[in-house]
Amino acid sequence: MPNYSTSLDLAFHALSDPTRRAVVSRLVEGELPVTALAEPFDMALPSFTQHLKVLEDCGLIVSEKRGRSRWCRLVPQRFDEAADWMMAERERWSGRLDRLEAYLDNKQKGEKTNA
Amino acid sequence: MPNYSTSLDLAFHALSDPTRRAVVSRLVEGELPVTALAEPFDMALPSFTQHLKVLEDCGLIVSEKRGRSRWCRLVPQRFDEAADWMMAERERWSGRLDRLEAYLDNKQKGEKTNA
Repeated sequence: MPNYSTSLDLAFHALSDPTRRAVVSRLVEGELPVTALAEPFDMALPSFTQHLKVLEDCGLIVSEKRGRSRWCRLVPQRFDEAADWMMAERERWSGRLDRLEAYLDNKQKGEKTNA
Repeated sequence: MPNYSTSLDLAFHALSDPTRRAVVSRLVEGELPVTALAEPFDMALPSFTQHLKVLEDCGLIVSEKRGRSRWCRLVPQRFDEAADWMMAERERWSGRLDRLEAYLDNKQKGEKTNA
């Protein structure tokens, strides 16, 4: 699955920066113009728009020009792909621990029966 | 939270590569020696161990020398930190959609009553 793999690569890379994660967190509440989105960050606007470009290139956000402002909004599908991958691995991990626990329980019961 | 932020940065960076995600997936099933872990990958061992180093540096895996082999295992806590961040954002997003739906429902009901 090369395309799926690449989109996960880009999504995780995009989330590996605190500014970009903070942008995602703010956009979860709703769309915002770039100027309002940039306001809480102590960063020059060109640096900030670079971060937006990384988020937009990987499909985590889209932006749209409306009048004199550019508005950004989250694209949950791309976020979900990365979240789903993590959840699937976590479920496999929990399943393994459950099986291990069941095995140890049975073993202990067997030992008690044989004692 | 600078430390928490840094550990999330490193965890997401580590997961932004398909080889490293595949290593995590394999270690979900249980610990493995480096040689067995490297086997399915069409990659020179030094390149592969570089990937393991990234995973180990961010705390997603630990490795331990036993006799002539080095064994790797997953550290679920670090994985959980990243997964928990994603789940929290996803829940906020779902909550926002639920509120939006409830608002639109109420608005529609109000329009019908007034019609």
